[in-house]
Amino acid sequence: MLTPSKKALVPFVSVENMMKLVHANGLDNMLIRIADAIEQDFLRWDAFDKTPRVASHSDVGVIELMPTSDGELYGFKYVNGHPKNTAEGLQTVTAFGLLADVNSGYPVLLSEMTLLTALRTAAMSALAAKHLAPKGATTMAMIGNGAQSEFQCRAFAAICGITHVRLFDTDPAATTKCAANLAGTNLHVTTCTTAEDAVTGAQIITTCTADKQNATVLTDNLVGAGVHINAIGGDCPGKTELHADILHRASIFVEYPPQTRVEGEIQALADDHPVIELHNVFAGKTTGRASDKQITLFDSVGFAIEDFSALRTILTAIKGTDFFINLDMLADPDDPRDLYGMLNRAK
Amino acid sequence: MLTPSKKALVPFVSVENMMKLVHANGLDNMLIRIADAIEQDFLRWDAFDKTPRVASHSDVGVIELMPTSDGELYGFKYVNGHPKNTAEGLQTVTAFGLLADVNSGYPVLLSEMTLLTALRTAAMSALAAKHLAPKGATTMAMIGNGAQSEFQCRAFAAICGITHVRLFDTDPAATTKCAANLAGTNLHVTTCTTAEDAVTGAQIITTCTADKQNATVLTDNLVGAGVHINAIGGDCPGKTELHADILHRASIFVEYPPQTRVEGEIQALADDHPVIELHNVFAGKTTGRASDKQITLFDSVGFAIEDFSALRTILTAIKGTDFFINLDMLADPDDPRDLYGMLNRAK
Repeated sequence: MLTPSKKALVPFVSVENMMKLVHANGLDNMLIRIADAIEQDFLRWDAFDKTPRVASHSDVGVIELMPTSDGELYGFKYVNGHPKNTAEGLQTVTAFGLLADVNSGYPVLLSEMTLLTALRTAAMSALAAKHLAPKGATTMAMIGNGAQSEFQCRAFAAICGITHVRLFDTDPAATTKCAANLAGTNLHVTTCTTAEDAVTGAQIITTCTADKQNATVLTDNLVGAGVHINAIGGDCPGKTELHADILHRASIFVEYPPQTRVEGEIQALADDHPVIELHNVFAGKTTGRASDKQITLFDSVGFAIEDFSALRTILTAIKGTDFFINLDMLADPDDPRDLYGMLNRAK
Repeated sequence: MLTPSKKALVPFVSVENMMKLVHANGLDNMLIRIADAIEQDFLRWDAFDKTPRVASHSDVGVIELMPTSDGELYGFKYVNGHPKNTAEGLQTVTAFGLLADVNSGYPVLLSEMTLLTALRTAAMSALAAKHLAPKGATTMAMIGNGAQSEFQCRAFAAICGITHVRLFDTDPAATTKCAANLAGTNLHVTTCTTAEDAVTGAQIITTCTADKQNATVLTDNLVGAGVHINAIGGDCPGKTELHADILHRASIFVEYPPQTRVEGEIQALADDHPVIELHNVFAGKTTGRASDKQITLFDSVGFAIEDFSALRTILTAIKGTDFFINLDMLADPDDPRDLYGMLNRAK
């Protein structure tokens, strides 16, 4: 009587199993699969329920729920953002996510998403750059060498053909860590002591810093004609990385404008400043990069559909593997109206 | 290296463990503890973030997220509502929930909530009736004998001193099931073949039916002076149970007006129809029942704070027990900035 029926069980991918899954498939392969899933989902943009994230703010951070649905699968991510956590030995961002069957409302996957968010953020960045960066780009400046940095470098290598990365962080220890982690990959890694040094010769500039403030990680004079900027760290109200002069010189590409205008670099601009929706670029409805001299900017904030794409990649990837356990998370009495009887019989 | 640190682990209460926990403490005790927790939380109403639930509707049902926070703990519930599920051998409603530490954003409890929602709904009903039902009430009519019905009967016995229940359902098999489940408890159970029969001599009438429509489970002539009505089943747009004439005769008590006006029985009334917020009754700021002749109506829809109260009851109840397992749900590298290194070392 205590053995739950199959319907009551939800596959759960732990952090350990996510790591095993990534290694079994290879990190490059997983990044490519997630990027492909995001591109497919962005190509059917209108099929998705799009809600701004639901945020609960406190003095020290934010906890957010990011739901979406394509009418067949429903997904949401729980994610926190607590910049002060690092100093306490905790992650700034932790996350988990869920997929459910829209037809029955029953969950079909629960997964850790701290690692998976790092993968999908990197996959999304590289996917945008595949469409926006100058052709033949080989070198990326990586400004901000924290938890997301190596994933960005790996994704740009796997998806955009980047062969050289130039690392800079205001904390040299972060740069050392990033360089050490990338040793043994095919990437040529150069550590730099200034942002100016890092952007030298780079066709792509990625900014990914964590301080919750309006910082100026990149000034206008560092951005040459034709560069693609991948701005990751400006992702919540009051947190930006780029000098406004750069924004005025750039063609700005975004995921979902209602969210980006509140959370992205463009919070510094007028509400009607023109932006281009990436899904229209992927679909060929809008031009991405129009000239060699154009500065393109992906103002990345992270959107619920990307998490949905990542979760459905995992749902497919775990099939036939041992990289999950089944959780007895749903009550499933033999007679659906007899929940009490199920409880009673368990005595 | 693969052993996750303590911070990365989230206690998870499965359906099986929830059943064991309830039996170890006794159902009456758990209902009383949850009702106490709800009352305490309603007494500090202003401490809570109150957001209407975030719903994703489809043709066949709805999936909802219900978040709230008291500034120290954050909680949310995932819950679906799919009336057609019963015919397919599935639960109409399944749910799970989470508590997290607002200070770090780290989850501290993941729990099944299909059973727990049944408990908290019954505890909330009985708590409201404790404040609103006529003094010395002994008999409750239970109209609708589905999955929630036995929990309602048990909560009214444990919390309001109800000794007699009179059961009615349009499906006699449901009534038979409910009566069989309540055999062996202290309750005197009478099965009835009409709603009129069921309400005879009852001081409390509970309606709890599942059809998603504007039904008339209870007509005006069945409701005598002085009765307390506990209306559970009118809980989403287009789903009500009571004839509007009853609403006009009754003093109407609600959890959170912005939600109840959309989802409750009062969706049939004008937007400014007077309602009384239960937390004000609990706090003694407003009179509950003012006379023996008054009809009181709890227009129950279920509010996020009640789930929060139920979850924190479970968080306390599992301490020092074996009724949970630890899930490796959060990535927790030794150096918070070295997520990639953690992945790499797991190879």
